[in-house]
Amino acid sequence: MKLLEPITINGMKVPNRVMVPAMVTRLSGEDGFVSKEISDRYVRYAQGEVGLIVVEAMAIHGSNAGPLLRISDDKFIPGLKEMVRKIHDASDSKVVPQIIHFLKIARSGWRQTVDMLTLEDIERIIQQFGEAAARAREAGFDGIELHNAHAYTLASFVSRVNGRTDEYGGTTLENRLRLIGRVMDSVRRYVGRDFPVGIRYLSDEFIRGGYTVEDAKLIGLRMAQLGADYLSLSVGGKFEDAVHTPGHVLHGYSGYSGERCMPGASFPDALHVPYAAEIKAFIAAKGFDVPVIAAGKLSDPATAEAVLAAGKVDMVAIARGLLADPDWVKKLRLGQLDRIVKCDYCNVCKQLDGAHMPVTCFLWPKGAMQAPADHGPVVQPPAWPESGAGLAIKTEGGSVALKWKKAPGAVYYDVYRTDDDGEPHIVDGVKLPVFTDTAVLGGVRYRYYVRACDANGNAGVPSESVSYDPLVPGHDPAAEAVSAA
Amino acid sequence: MKLLEPITINGMKVPNRVMVPAMVTRLSGEDGFVSKEISDRYVRYAQGEVGLIVVEAMAIHGSNAGPLLRISDDKFIPGLKEMVRKIHDASDSKVVPQIIHFLKIARSGWRQTVDMLTLEDIERIIQQFGEAAARAREAGFDGIELHNAHAYTLASFVSRVNGRTDEYGGTTLENRLRLIGRVMDSVRRYVGRDFPVGIRYLSDEFIRGGYTVEDAKLIGLRMAQLGADYLSLSVGGKFEDAVHTPGHVLHGYSGYSGERCMPGASFPDALHVPYAAEIKAFIAAKGFDVPVIAAGKLSDPATAEAVLAAGKVDMVAIARGLLADPDWVKKLRLGQLDRIVKCDYCNVCKQLDGAHMPVTCFLWPKGAMQAPADHGPVVQPPAWPESGAGLAIKTEGGSVALKWKKAPGAVYYDVYRTDDDGEPHIVDGVKLPVFTDTAVLGGVRYRYYVRACDANGNAGVPSESVSYDPLVPGHDPAAEAVSAA
Repeated sequence: MKLLEPITINGMKVPNRVMVPAMVTRLSGEDGFVSKEISDRYVRYAQGEVGLIVVEAMAIHGSNAGPLLRISDDKFIPGLKEMVRKIHDASDSKVVPQIIHFLKIARSGWRQTVDMLTLEDIERIIQQFGEAAARAREAGFDGIELHNAHAYTLASFVSRVNGRTDEYGGTTLENRLRLIGRVMDSVRRYVGRDFPVGIRYLSDEFIRGGYTVEDAKLIGLRMAQLGADYLSLSVGGKFEDAVHTPGHVLHGYSGYSGERCMPGASFPDALHVPYAAEIKAFIAAKGFDVPVIAAGKLSDPATAEAVLAAGKVDMVAIARGLLADPDWVKKLRLGQLDRIVKCDYCNVCKQLDGAHMPVTCFLWPKGAMQAPADHGPVVQPPAWPESGAGLAIKTEGGSVALKWKKAPGAVYYDVYRTDDDGEPHIVDGVKLPVFTDTAVLGGVRYRYYVRACDANGNAGVPSESVSYDPLVPGHDPAAEAVSAA
Repeated sequence: MKLLEPITINGMKVPNRVMVPAMVTRLSGEDGFVSKEISDRYVRYAQGEVGLIVVEAMAIHGSNAGPLLRISDDKFIPGLKEMVRKIHDASDSKVVPQIIHFLKIARSGWRQTVDMLTLEDIERIIQQFGEAAARAREAGFDGIELHNAHAYTLASFVSRVNGRTDEYGGTTLENRLRLIGRVMDSVRRYVGRDFPVGIRYLSDEFIRGGYTVEDAKLIGLRMAQLGADYLSLSVGGKFEDAVHTPGHVLHGYSGYSGERCMPGASFPDALHVPYAAEIKAFIAAKGFDVPVIAAGKLSDPATAEAVLAAGKVDMVAIARGLLADPDWVKKLRLGQLDRIVKCDYCNVCKQLDGAHMPVTCFLWPKGAMQAPADHGPVVQPPAWPESGAGLAIKTEGGSVALKWKKAPGAVYYDVYRTDDDGEPHIVDGVKLPVFTDTAVLGGVRYRYYVRACDANGNAGVPSESVSYDPLVPGHDPAAEAVSAA
């Protein structure tokens, strides 16, 4: 299985091809020090045997930003060192921090843009990235990742909507790439060539006037030329199309580009892999073999494996799927796929982030601030009452309402659906024993069943099935399709 | 060559696999009658042997909308009939009108939304589509196309952001599909089963909260169930993210979704084919063989042929490429690829539309309101002066400025570039003998040359080449990439 093959990145031996990309937790204090909650969150991924753990973005500078990790001063090193030690003690997982510079934002909706920075500001940023990288190395991290994505400073320079007109400006691609180039050089001066330095950047900005994969291929080539040790691709997440909620600072994931960045249930699986694959192929054709990492709805193991097996990318980044179940890799290794807590892309985690609240998973036990410890397979997963699940179906005007009996010990229920007798797939994970499907189409045969799951994803036997075979509504048979086989 | 193979669509014998999709011309009068300019525009496509000509959207109702064709009353039939006759007289091209219902928009930025329509309004729309279809048949069109795309009424019902709460509302997929289903039935009652009825719809709305290809597969299945004779896929073009220019009505192509709809030079070729291909595969698996047509940067003949040869879709829709050169198909058939006036996706046509001005192509001769008549290959295409083209290059900070001497008789110049000695491709088509490239990357070798073209795309001999081999700027060699081959 390709997912479980190790990969060496500039000397860093990553035990498998699964990365948890940087995900804000909002578990840090305002002071920027590592808290127990933050440390526990990342140790949990190590216990779950995630190959490469990217710790959420930590600031290289001192700007106000609410609860956010910091690496902007030597005083933060001991806390980071302690967290890294605990992560390394837990498993062979490798861990790198994502280091970030961001511009100012205000509750009025105002935001600082790159054209407001002086050349002295730029020199300071270059210096701060170098110093932060050195601190990361001192703290014992296995490498670092530069945050050159989304709505933040580096990505805003690389963006096509960079409004500067000087040598760091949007007038040419080289000018847009000048800052990240100088940052890379600065970082190398501080940490040397033998320390893994990855870069996260966007394969498509998904904003008006933004760049697409065409530029992203060239940006990736430049990163390779500069000696980046991995390229981790994201998309969107920009301020340009963010929706301003009065009284709150802009949230880079509130617009369309933010929807693309953390695509919900309505988006297809693996939707951004083609971009990452194109970038990998382009760079390879230029003679560089930098590992390329794709993200975006890759938490289905079969899907992720297929992407790697086809050689499209070198690793998969799974954020929400590993938040739901940090033991994803371990369960995969043990052949316990059925025990994975499967992300249904409800995006409650995204909403919590947008509301500046601690980020948790809806599928965790009620009130849990961390994924529960894994107690392994159980002899008795949640069972239906003796009388059965009592799965009942009610249909009306294109909607299907299901309800069933509670299973004692169930933390959540997975709702399965088959269409025209195809493969069952999970359409939702719910806490209460009810589900409504509003996406059924007349002319397709549907079958539903439900499984009750405990906190570790141990699923009980499927309920009985219910079926629904809706007609095409109000259709005049005299005008029937003639091309149906 | 697959592009030149005929295809029969519900009895309509389309001579090849190339469609010109509906493109607004703004050549109609406010009265909605066919003008000479409109008629000439579409006859021109027939002379160029385009397989299927879709005449720009014509209104099925009487709302104000500036210069726009109408099919809302029998009085419009004679004019349409005359245009259809001329088109049929010109070649074997088939021609269908795109018929449209749109909601009201005001200069204030206000727009009517589907939730403001009464059930009586909806019944009227259903009736109007049927009557318009009957008029199209009477006018001699070979079929019709229902406009179920972009920012207009039918697509706004199918949209995920349909705000109604009744049986035509956004609460279920079936409710969203109810109106188009009833419209299809109404149309069939008027024109019968033996008249080709195609549907244009979106494979992705590209707006926040909008639908993606996942819904588009189901929407396509429904269209197939209802007996649609072809599915023509577009994307985006919505009002929800349109940018309001004070004093002007909303333009559905002014936001990000509009950029996607008519993707400019920064987007990759054939970018929306994967969606159309997924829809075709999904519908085929359900037993329907409805032809599926893809659009979006398909004007490169090799690209278009590859898409068809791979069986991804059944036809290609080329809008801007055929505006630039209505003789695209004819030149392809004659093996005169070098004579095609090649669209460079500068989107001047899109800007003209946005400014409510007659839509022309920048590559046409200055002031021309139509593509020039084709006089065939010429013995003497535009030639450089005796002293040569004098191609000069000036480079600075990531930009390359070219200039050259005028070639007598040149209407425009194609600028070719090779990267690292790869295939030459056209990076721009310009009227004046100057070009600036701001997308060069240090570490890549570039070579440029220019060809002068006459109004029919007859290109003279290439100029001498100039080369540029930029370094990675400011890069510290001590921190060099180690992974370069």
